[in-house]
Formats: sequence, structure tokens, C-alpha cells
Amino acid sequence: MKKHYPISIDKNSPDPLYVQVFEEIKKMILNGTLKEDEKLPSIRDLSKSIGVNNITVVNAYKLLEQEGLVYTKIGSGTFVKGLNKKDEKIINIKNDEIRKDEFIKINLSNSMPNPLYFPVEEFKEVINEILDRDGGSVFTYQEPKGYLPLRESLLNYSLENGIEVNLNDIHIISGAQQGIDIISKTLLKFGDNVVVECPTYTGAVAVFRSRGANIIDVPIEKDGINLNILEDVVKKNKVKLIYIMTNFQNPTGYTYSEDTKIDLLYLANKYDFYIIEDDYMSELRFYGDNTLPIKSIDKNNRVIYLKSFSKIFMPGIRLGYIISPANMNMDIQSAKYSTDISTSGLMQRAFDLYLRKRLWHNHIRYLVERYKEKYDFIVEYLTNNASFIEFVKPNGGIHLWCSTNVDSALFASMLKDEGILIAPGTAFYLDEESTNYFRISFGTVDRDELKLAVDKMKEVYERYQRGELFKFI
Amino acid sequence: MKKHYPISIDKNSPDPLYVQVFEEIKKMILNGTLKEDEKLPSIRDLSKSIGVNNITVVNAYKLLEQEGLVYTKIGSGTFVKGLNKKDEKIINIKNDEIRKDEFIKINLSNSMPNPLYFPVEEFKEVINEILDRDGGSVFTYQEPKGYLPLRESLLNYSLENGIEVNLNDIHIISGAQQGIDIISKTLLKFGDNVVVECPTYTGAVAVFRSRGANIIDVPIEKDGINLNILEDVVKKNKVKLIYIMTNFQNPTGYTYSEDTKIDLLYLANKYDFYIIEDDYMSELRFYGDNTLPIKSIDKNNRVIYLKSFSKIFMPGIRLGYIISPANMNMDIQSAKYSTDISTSGLMQRAFDLYLRKRLWHNHIRYLVERYKEKYDFIVEYLTNNASFIEFVKPNGGIHLWCSTNVDSALFASMLKDEGILIAPGTAFYLDEESTNYFRISFGTVDRDELKLAVDKMKEVYERYQRGELFKFI
Repeated sequence: MKKHYPISIDKNSPDPLYVQVFEEIKKMILNGTLKEDEKLPSIRDLSKSIGVNNITVVNAYKLLEQEGLVYTKIGSGTFVKGLNKKDEKIINIKNDEIRKDEFIKINLSNSMPNPLYFPVEEFKEVINEILDRDGGSVFTYQEPKGYLPLRESLLNYSLENGIEVNLNDIHIISGAQQGIDIISKTLLKFGDNVVVECPTYTGAVAVFRSRGANIIDVPIEKDGINLNILEDVVKKNKVKLIYIMTNFQNPTGYTYSEDTKIDLLYLANKYDFYIIEDDYMSELRFYGDNTLPIKSIDKNNRVIYLKSFSKIFMPGIRLGYIISPANMNMDIQSAKYSTDISTSGLMQRAFDLYLRKRLWHNHIRYLVERYKEKYDFIVEYLTNNASFIEFVKPNGGIHLWCSTNVDSALFASMLKDEGILIAPGTAFYLDEESTNYFRISFGTVDRDELKLAVDKMKEVYERYQRGELFKFI
Repeated sequence: MKKHYPISIDKNSPDPLYVQVFEEIKKMILNGTLKEDEKLPSIRDLSKSIGVNNITVVNAYKLLEQEGLVYTKIGSGTFVKGLNKKDEKIINIKNDEIRKDEFIKINLSNSMPNPLYFPVEEFKEVINEILDRDGGSVFTYQEPKGYLPLRESLLNYSLENGIEVNLNDIHIISGAQQGIDIISKTLLKFGDNVVVECPTYTGAVAVFRSRGANIIDVPIEKDGINLNILEDVVKKNKVKLIYIMTNFQNPTGYTYSEDTKIDLLYLANKYDFYIIEDDYMSELRFYGDNTLPIKSIDKNNRVIYLKSFSKIFMPGIRLGYIISPANMNMDIQSAKYSTDISTSGLMQRAFDLYLRKRLWHNHIRYLVERYKEKYDFIVEYLTNNASFIEFVKPNGGIHLWCSTNVDSALFASMLKDEGILIAPGTAFYLDEESTNYFRISFGTVDRDELKLAVDKMKEVYERYQRGELFKFI
């Protein structure tokens, strides 16, 4: 007896028919109406019964197969795969963007801004104002260097942040990751040596490696990179550039002292290397005085300053800027051109207006308030309730670099079973060595979730200490 | 006697004060109120007279200097530069994007879509629908592979265009230029050989060279790349990939025949190289039957298909997609991630809705009508009025590849003096050899401009033939 397929199709919907068929069958698989290994109707039968072309059903079945929901046996038809056999989709990218899993209750592994704080309505108004004001020119090619008024606005923003800068040195980019890529294209040749902090953001390392560079890591300490070790390295190796984060470093949260910055510049001059200063977070300072970027004291064209708005504002805006040494301007412009020609004109114009209306400045004040509340809460709660977790209090940012006396990959794995995600420290080292360090990001979770997560950490830690938990990893 | 500076400042304007001061003085220089070598007031005097801080005037003067409108003499002040001494701004990028010049009347050098045809209002509505529908998630990180519903829409679009494709093989990118960059990162190592058509789009060549590749060019003919020469090349050299445009090639307008496509695939299998098929224009066919992309007959994972919407739709959308061989998916995804993490979520979602509402399909029909009118006109006008210009009629696209018996760099230079820009052929060859070929793009100019441009070409050509014009170049 043929099963009834309650598939409703809306021919006036903007969704293609085959997607609608796909969605309906998917629903039936997920809610158990269709059972594991059950045979789906033939293409002809189903297309006839719901009144669509054969090709629509062919495409729908194809999509189901691609999603891992069904399998085909040649000559006999299409069958439901069953959820426990569903292909696991592995996102094999080593970074801090771990896919949400339906079993995860609290995700502390992503260092990203809280979508609840995105000024969507305000930004929508700005976008509409731009579309009304500029019309079609929003969608023409933009200059590779960027939209001039935005570059002027960012010149001014840089001045406010203590960097005296020439308009010609400002280049608009589509986010910091692209900035690292463009700078690498400008500077790195196959076999060049690059120094990074240890631990560091390995998304940058991937880019350097892709250019054929040789990576050397040097420990970062509370006041910045270890200069003695660095000097040893640059004495023994011709180093082309060093990649650093001077404020609230990712993952450690450390901030460079004025002395370290001055001495590092001295070494850069003496040993002839460049410094990429990645400023992804300096606006989110909760305590202590603002510090100036190392770019602000660079008199010898050593520092390439990289500013992104993704981690504090909205990642989706894909916007940032480079302040380059004057002698590198043409090369950076060419590299930008051959990378993606130019950054979205709409986003450039909208963000420019957002800056000129001082909405950005207001928004930053709002963000600092919001994130500081979270920061104060987690610092206090960890201190009072989870003394087995050690961490150095950073003066800002949205993550803490923590350690226990347990291997962090093991700890992360045990926590994952409880629905808590943290970022084990191995993700921030070059060679995935074992480490007790891990990063917890608190930007996107609320107070109750933070409390629950810390309580779970404590519970898991104590059960492990009592020998009640053991995992092979 | 002090000159009066009629500078009006609006403290409620979103424009920063220093930009307002800059704009006002700039206006006075451009309209002649301020004369060459005239001294500007001191910073203190001006700031007092218009009631702003010193730093505002400092920044305004700095901007004027950067724009080449004033110069400073140390110890004596800031002076007006005079327009004839104004620094010429040279955009030293060898490509088809030549900066608009105030003296240029008609620009046939840019192969770009006509901004008058951009569906700005329609697209604005779609953007607003998306912002209302999806809220903050528009601005979160998107998946590196792209927004799933857009990938589904493009799967369907590919099917409509004859490419049977697996959803997993579709990757969203920020335009074709980025696609070339990502594919290069995936495939090319230092020293690899890459074959390109001769002539070709040199923006692609720049990317291959930046990866340290060795470039070999092979002539393109009316039915595609010369296969005899190509086979010689791939016999003698281990070639990693070949970059081709199968429809309305840039710059020649040639389209690959079915035979050439089949034979090229045969060579790719035999000699183990990959093919990048850059489909930037196939929708704009005016005559003849649609041809299928080479990807549609690729059974052995040889072809990486690259689709951009910039050249036909709106460059500012910065959106395209790759259809990759299945075995390359993970590598392309990683390369995309380290290139810019992900493409703008807003543009992805908006374009998806634009496709689902079938607005794209309607728009393409509209564009084909509009551009065909221009195409028919210029082909007829050239044929009837400028027989000294030879060209092969392509079946579509928005440019013609022309030649005369004069060196095209010389011809372009003489035309430029008359306010007409064309793209001399040297820009499309690897070694800037001398050539009589040039490209004229007719997408953005109207009928009268086209007529005037061709008449000027004729006039200049005839004066040159009579020995009335001579230029050193």
C-alpha cells in the first residue's frame, strides 16, 4: 500500500519547487514520519501525485542525498538514511568558529560580538540613506584604495586614536583576514621567515604558510612578546616580518607595555623587519588607560597597522583598514586590486555615514558598558567559585585565557559532553602541542549561561579529579 | 589687508569640521577665488575667524596638501599650488579600470556594465526585505562556503544553464578576481606552469605571478585556444592549470566551439592539468545558440568553473561562485576562509532573494535587449563608416576587439588628446609588445557618444595618414 505524502507545494512562492519538495521530505524524515531504510516513492509516482515535473523531484532527491538524508541503490531506488547514520558534516577548519551543534547549550568557544548588540535598525536606516543619496554609483566598481570620504573619516578616527596619518597611507580592506592576506602578498616571498606570538591567532599563520613562509613563534608575556628570545631569533635568522596584537592579544588578553613597544621598534629598525600590528579589539577597554598603538610611534616605516571592525561591531560588515608605510602604498594597492578589486561600495558608504553621524562613537560607548558588565561578572564568579581555574585579568576584550591542572583538550572534550564549548589552547599553537590553557569567550552569552557554564566546569573538574570521568581523546 | 574667507561651517552636519573647511577652501581654489602661490591665512588666524580649533584647520590644510592643492614652505606658511601644477594622480595599475579624467568626453576603455541599468530600487527593496526578515543574523559571520539557500539557488541556476552540479561543490566568492586568487591558493605552488590565452585578462595573470607561477601564453583563435600549440606546450612543460574564457573571451570576444572544448578536456586528462573556466559574460548572447560551459562535459574533475555577476549585473555586489571538482572542496573552503573568512552576508541573502523572485531572470532579458541595441548600432556604424577598423563580430558581450594598420598605443594616445579613451591591446599581452589591436567597450555609452567616438577615430586616423599628426610615445 502506498504511503500518503502530505507534500504541499506553493507555486507562487519565491522558493523553487524542488527546494519546497526537498524541505517537505526532509521534515518527514526529521520528525520520524519516514523511517530508516524506508523506500521513497519513485520519481514518476511522486511527481504525478504532487503535480510537478520529474526534474523537480530528481533535484529534490539529489539535494536530500547531498544533505546525507537519503541514499540510493542503483536499480532499486532511494531510501531514508536514518538519522544515526547521517553523514557527520565535518568543518575541518582549525579556527575559533566552531559550528553550532544542536546539543550544545552554551558556546564559549567563539570570540565574536553579540548579535543582540548589532544596531540593525540604525544601520538599515543608514543603508537606505546611502541608496537614496548615491543611487547606482553604490554598485559601480570602487577604487581599490577605498571610498575617499570613508578614508577621510578613518583618517580622522585614527587621529582621535593617536595615530598621525597621511590620507594616502589608508587602504580599505574587507576585514582583517583579508588585510593579513594582502600584506603577505605585498611582503612575503617563498621561504621568508615570519615571527608570530606564541600562542597566537592561527588564521594569520595559515596565510603566511600559504605564501611559503617559514613560521617561528616567540612566547608572549604579560607585557608583550619576549624581547630576549625575539632578539636571539632575529639575530640567527633573517626575519621579514612579525605579526602581533598589541591590545588584548588573542588568545592571552595581554597588552603590550610602552617599553616593549619602544624596544620592539628598536629591534625592527636594527634587524630590518616589519611589524604587522593587528588592532582588532582596542576599543573594548574596561580598565586602565588607553594605550597608543605601536604605529603611533613608528618613525621609520616599520609598522603596518591593521584595523578590523568585525570582532567588536558586526562581522558581516567585512570592513577594515590598513595604515601602511608610505613606501608600500602602491604595492598594497596592487595587491588589494588583484585580491578582490575593491571592497563593497555599499558597506563602505554606509559605514562612512555611520562614522560621520557619530553613531559609531555612541555605539562603542554602549558596547563597552554591555561587555564590561559581562566581564566583571565572569571575573568575579570565576574568582569566587572556581579557584581551580587560573587566569590573568586582561583590561578589556571579550575572552579570558585560563588554565587548570588538566590537559585542556581533555577538559574541553568532557565539557562538550555536558553541552559546554570552550576553545582548547592547542588551537592557538603552531604544533598543537598539549596544553592546560584554554580560551573562554563571554561576548555572546548571558549571565545565567555564564554561571551555569562555570558551575558545569567545576562539576566536571571535580568528578574528573575523583576519577569518575575518563575519556580517551 | 587680510582677505575675507567666506567659510561657512555647520556644526550639526555629519561631516567633520575639518572636512568642511577643506571643502570650502578647495572650492575657492577651484573657482579661482584663491590664486596660484597666494598665501593661506595662518592656522591661528583662520581657526579664530571661523570659530574652530587649531587642529581642525591643521587637518584641513593637511588634506589640501594631500590633494595636491596647496604646498607648504617651512617657516613661511601654506600656499595655493595653482591648478596647472597640481600633482597628476597616476593610478599605476595595469587593467581596464582607467580613472575618469575631466577632459575625457567618451570612455570606451572600461569593460563594465552601464550603471543606468542597475536595478537600484528593486535591489533596495530586496535588501530591506532581508534586513526585516533576518535581522542581526545578516551581520554575523557567514559560513566560508556561503549562505546555504543562495548555494541552493545557484545550484538551480547552474542546472538551468546545463551544468549538473552537486551542492557541495558550490562555493560563494566575493567576485571573480577573488575566485582566481582562491583557486591559485588551492592549486599553485612556486614555480608551477600556468597557461593563459593570448591575449587575455591580465588581472588573472597578476594573481598567478603573485603565487610565483611561470606564465606561458598560447594564441586564442576564433574557435578557442590553438590546440596544436597548446599540446606542444604541455608536452614540453608540466603544466598545472590553464585559464580560459569560453564565451566572448576578454578581449577578443571569441567563443569556444564544441570541438575545441572536447579536445581541450581530452588534453587536460592526457597531460593532467586543470582548467579554470571564467564565465563572466555568457548571459549576454545576442546571436547564435547558447553554448554549454566546458564544465558541463567535465567527467574527470578537470574543470573549475568560475561565475561572476560583476560584469553583467553590478560590480559593487562583489559576488560570484565557484563550481569545483569534488576532490578540491575542502581545500577551496580553507583557502576562502583564509582569504576573507566569508562573503558579505547581506549581499548573499539579497542576491538569493533576487534570484528566487526571478527578478534576475527578468533583468537578464532586459539587459540583453538594451546591450543588443548598442551592439547592433556600433557594428553597423563601424562597418559602414570606418572600414579602416577591422574586427570579428562576436555573438555577444559588451566589447569589440578591433585593429587598424596603426600601432594601437599610438592610436589610443592620439584619441586621448581628442577626449576619447580606448584600451590599447598591449594591456592584454604578457609582455606589452606592440600591437595594432585595441578593445572598445560600448556598454556604458549611448548612441550619440558611440557615433561621435567612431567619427573621431576616423578623423584622427585620416589626419595621421596624411602626416598631420605625430606623437612620440
